[in-house]
Amino acid sequence: MSSINKKFLSKGIDNSGFGSNSNTEGGRLTNKDGSINLRKTGTPFFSRYSLYHVLIRLPRTKFLLLVFVFYTVINIFFAFLYVYIGVDRLEGTQHSNNFFIQYSQAFFFSSQTLTTVGYGHVAPTGLLANSLASIESFAGIMAFALVTGLFYARFSRPRAHLMFSEKLLLTPYKEGNAFMLRVASKKNNHLTDAEAFVTTAFHVEENGKRVTKFYTLPLEISHINSLALSWTIVHYIDEKSPFWGFSEQDLRDANIEVMVTIKAFDDNYSNLVQQRTSYVASEIEYGAKFIPAFARSEDGSHTILQLDKLHVYEPVELNV
Amino acid sequence: MSSINKKFLSKGIDNSGFGSNSNTEGGRLTNKDGSINLRKTGTPFFSRYSLYHVLIRLPRTKFLLLVFVFYTVINIFFAFLYVYIGVDRLEGTQHSNNFFIQYSQAFFFSSQTLTTVGYGHVAPTGLLANSLASIESFAGIMAFALVTGLFYARFSRPRAHLMFSEKLLLTPYKEGNAFMLRVASKKNNHLTDAEAFVTTAFHVEENGKRVTKFYTLPLEISHINSLALSWTIVHYIDEKSPFWGFSEQDLRDANIEVMVTIKAFDDNYSNLVQQRTSYVASEIEYGAKFIPAFARSEDGSHTILQLDKLHVYEPVELNV
Amino acid sequence: MSSINKKFLSKGIDNSGFGSNSNTEGGRLTNKDGSINLRKTGTPFFSRYSLYHVLIRLPRTKFLLLVFVFYTVINIFFAFLYVYIGVDRLEGTQHSNNFFIQYSQAFFFSSQTLTTVGYGHVAPTGLLANSLASIESFAGIMAFALVTGLFYARFSRPRAHLMFSEKLLLTPYKEGNAFMLRVASKKNNHLTDAEAFVTTAFHVEENGKRVTKFYTLPLEISHINSLALSWTIVHYIDEKSPFWGFSEQDLRDANIEVMVTIKAFDDNYSNLVQQRTSYVASEIEYGAKFIPAFARSEDGSHTILQLDKLHVYEPVELNV
Amino acid sequence: MSSINKKFLSKGIDNSGFGSNSNTEGGRLTNKDGSINLRKTGTPFFSRYSLYHVLIRLPRTKFLLLVFVFYTVINIFFAFLYVYIGVDRLEGTQHSNNFFIQYSQAFFFSSQTLTTVGYGHVAPTGLLANSLASIESFAGIMAFALVTGLFYARFSRPRAHLMFSEKLLLTPYKEGNAFMLRVASKKNNHLTDAEAFVTTAFHVEENGKRVTKFYTLPLEISHINSLALSWTIVHYIDEKSPFWGFSEQDLRDANIEVMVTIKAFDDNYSNLVQQRTSYVASEIEYGAKFIPAFARSEDGSHTILQLDKLHVYEPVELNV
Repeated sequence: MSSINKKFLSKGIDNSGFGSNSNTEGGRLTNKDGSINLRKTGTPFFSRYSLYHVLIRLPRTKFLLLVFVFYTVINIFFAFLYVYIGVDRLEGTQHSNNFFIQYSQAFFFSSQTLTTVGYGHVAPTGLLANSLASIESFAGIMAFALVTGLFYARFSRPRAHLMFSEKLLLTPYKEGNAFMLRVASKKNNHLTDAEAFVTTAFHVEENGKRVTKFYTLPLEISHINSLALSWTIVHYIDEKSPFWGFSEQDLRDANIEVMVTIKAFDDNYSNLVQQRTSYVASEIEYGAKFIPAFARSEDGSHTILQLDKLHVYEPVELNV
Repeated sequence: MSSINKKFLSKGIDNSGFGSNSNTEGGRLTNKDGSINLRKTGTPFFSRYSLYHVLIRLPRTKFLLLVFVFYTVINIFFAFLYVYIGVDRLEGTQHSNNFFIQYSQAFFFSSQTLTTVGYGHVAPTGLLANSLASIESFAGIMAFALVTGLFYARFSRPRAHLMFSEKLLLTPYKEGNAFMLRVASKKNNHLTDAEAFVTTAFHVEENGKRVTKFYTLPLEISHINSLALSWTIVHYIDEKSPFWGFSEQDLRDANIEVMVTIKAFDDNYSNLVQQRTSYVASEIEYGAKFIPAFARSEDGSHTILQLDKLHVYEPVELNV
Repeated sequence: MSSINKKFLSKGIDNSGFGSNSNTEGGRLTNKDGSINLRKTGTPFFSRYSLYHVLIRLPRTKFLLLVFVFYTVINIFFAFLYVYIGVDRLEGTQHSNNFFIQYSQAFFFSSQTLTTVGYGHVAPTGLLANSLASIESFAGIMAFALVTGLFYARFSRPRAHLMFSEKLLLTPYKEGNAFMLRVASKKNNHLTDAEAFVTTAFHVEENGKRVTKFYTLPLEISHINSLALSWTIVHYIDEKSPFWGFSEQDLRDANIEVMVTIKAFDDNYSNLVQQRTSYVASEIEYGAKFIPAFARSEDGSHTILQLDKLHVYEPVELNV
Repeated sequence: MSSINKKFLSKGIDNSGFGSNSNTEGGRLTNKDGSINLRKTGTPFFSRYSLYHVLIRLPRTKFLLLVFVFYTVINIFFAFLYVYIGVDRLEGTQHSNNFFIQYSQAFFFSSQTLTTVGYGHVAPTGLLANSLASIESFAGIMAFALVTGLFYARFSRPRAHLMFSEKLLLTPYKEGNAFMLRVASKKNNHLTDAEAFVTTAFHVEENGKRVTKFYTLPLEISHINSLALSWTIVHYIDEKSPFWGFSEQDLRDANIEVMVTIKAFDDNYSNLVQQRTSYVASEIEYGAKFIPAFARSEDGSHTILQLDKLHVYEPVELNV
């Protein structure tokens, strides 16, 4: 392999954003969902996180749970304050020496104030209770501004909604072989001006050291006008490919990782959207080809894209 | 036709995003409103739809109806819960054994809680009713966050507001003929840096099989600085055109579909906007030319764009 | 002039977006604020206007007035409905046979429902009043969603905040003369990657007809990295200029209009912003040069940009 | 130095956006946070500021304080109006001749109206009080629209979240030396397609006058696919550099300022983000090199980026 690699040493790209001696053989560079397999240290915990990014990426159920907990915690906090200044300052509450009864009345008054429902069968009297209620309703509006903003932002966030084939295939193509993956928009969105950008990372010997090299993989088609149907992205292994001259075994040995980025324009968001993924060695299938994922509708009036078939491939003899 | 087609077989573009053997002769590729004539299958119903895209594209009256139904259904649901735990837990309600009277009181209390109006002449007492009201007002704020967000997003969504001529014309032009369509912004928006991109699909014999080929149509002008007036988009059929050498009958036989995309920048949205349309065989008029759609205002101080004349054409002799 | 024009007939751009025989000599093509001097007809009034565009561009006081009128009209409408079904259905109202007293009570109840304040000293009873209140509070939330959305959108809308010099100057420059205008960001915004694009319209004889021709004016500098200070945009009249060989009188006779577009990126909006303006014959000053608009602060620690001096020029002898 | 500078006089860029004779030796051109060191005069105070830009850039605590003060001031204002028309017009208030008791009751009623809590234990009666409350709740919704919009906009504003190394280093590189700085995204955001753009300002003798010249510094790598780890931006001082032939002392004497702009695409915002900084003479370290800021995690599964080490360098001998 060393003779082959030498040819490409000078062609490796150094603007992948990853280091050449990162030695991350224990893990992948890019996760399946396109995020970077990286941890940051050296600054305080909170300064390392953008709360916005965290909340936007949280799974839906966790987000809703978090918001509900947040709502409850604020109520608990204010309820304690109302109990502290005296539940009798909340006119309309039932007199009781039982702490739980006092507290629950304060809690529900707090929730009515925070949401600005304000039934009024319980209402604050006196300076302290009134001030506290005034501050709470103000804080409620501020807090709900953030929460509802986030809630809507999550719902309306521009996303590519792409489905990638689970496997990257090595398929016979022209006189040789090609790496192929398939991608389709999996929802009712319409992407135009889609661009694909594929890079690979693999390990070569350089001056006796084992380093990670990065290469941009030339594609047969790297831009399509409309991502209407599924798109098979093809990297043909010819003289311009970093894999030129590799046998199947060489490819298996090279422990490659293939990183894919798709950028496109979405009409409904009127915005650029982007999605990434990555294929590591175990996600590459050698000697396989995709089966078609299309059909004509029974009445012949439109095309059907069978998303479940996007991943389906069958074995095939590779060219040597 | 076979001799003509051969010349262009190699020039067909393969990045249209449509398949070459999609065989969709029963229908058009792109609908009149620019959406793709495609259905997706193979994944669960809900994972195939982005709720956001659906709600953003729903016609206005359907959207308002849907929201009202949604509002009513949530109230019906909570009203049942209030009746279940006992309407007597809602202080201020009129005692009655009649289910309808109980239910309607619970329903209106629910609506007052959901919208956070909270008059308070009816108010919850006890742990259960209070908890339920607390949850409902919280849910109400969340739900209205989505609904009002969507409502406003629909209203403010960047759109090109373009009007395309109903027909694509074949008009005598220079020494030959040209396909022409007209486009104008139909509202009080001002588009700058407008770009037009036109592709055509048609069927040719290739290796004895009938396949769909795609071509980009070169335009006389494909970019204008300002889409101030109407814009006549012209594809001249010269040697660079896939239709070069076609007779009128050849064109009619080819069963072509012409897909048009306009991209521009809108000042008020400060955003890129895009609109698409498509012309199938029945929407092409052979031997016709557009009549002007402009006039000077009576006082001579400004130009008038007559939008109703955008579609108007008159018959004309084609060049042979 | 005819000999000069012939040289440029072929160089005129035909993608200005304006027509060549628009004959709009009575008025300017582009207004001072960058909008197009155009009226549209031929479609129903409301389909010619995007309500969003209208409301976003309305002057602030008119917008606030309109919103207040809108709020009042909705209250008037619902108040009539409450009076129609009987003010006695609103518990807590004072009984009266005086229509004005009835109506004003209904009106204030309506406003308390619409804004979801819902004090509750007046509250609906019975099916009709409750249903109406339920619908009104729902409508209120929807209406305020639009209004507050617009209110905020107006406030946060990406704008270039540019100030253009009132006059376009013809100033001696190098061996000849140049058209110059100045532009600066007039607020505390910082624009980067600013691009200027200047076109001119003027009337030439072509085949005996007087037509409007459009030319892109080459600029000495058309892109700057940062619009930090003021920017003097310079079109030097050399062989590449459509005005090459024109005497001052020729320029005055040509009745030119110069249209300017600036595009830049704003950090705070994280968005592209654009602003346009136009200079007609009466806004061009022949034989004048701008005086500097900068000074150093007294303590020498920063530069001062004197915005009021942006327009200031002094007479100067032109090169012949 | 004069012989060296002459070579570059013609290469200086004149589109930096800064003036050549700005003579701002007392201060830097660009502040550390990327803003321009400039003050504007000549227009009224308020027309020089975009309130939006001010409020978006205000530090968090100042913003929250300002909003709270704003909320309080509106309440104070309306409370005075209620007291003026008579607190007895607010039914449910406690009768008192004490101004403070009157005023505090009016104040809390006002806050309940403004936030639309509207408990209703205090409620307006009569035309004046009702009208005032109606206007206040309307104003409250408008005001909170702005405030909550701003609150959320600040939270969700697209930002690059970049950390730049505190110092710019002159480091031995290849056969000569290079200026180097490091940058990394300091939060959990992922930037792709990052571009760096570096310019320098320094003072040269031109026709006997001391003027500021601007140069674009060519970079070894100016674009990276993914800003995954830290990025060392390198300007090698070779024949294409404006600093070619400068000794270390020449560089120190030149009193240079180096301005850096990074542009990238952020997935979560689906938006372009940009951040700038600048290094003045005192922030340049001659003869130093960065130490690595990476480590492998203990379990070998991912890379660790040590943000605190981003600034760390060690002394090194420069090439001569």
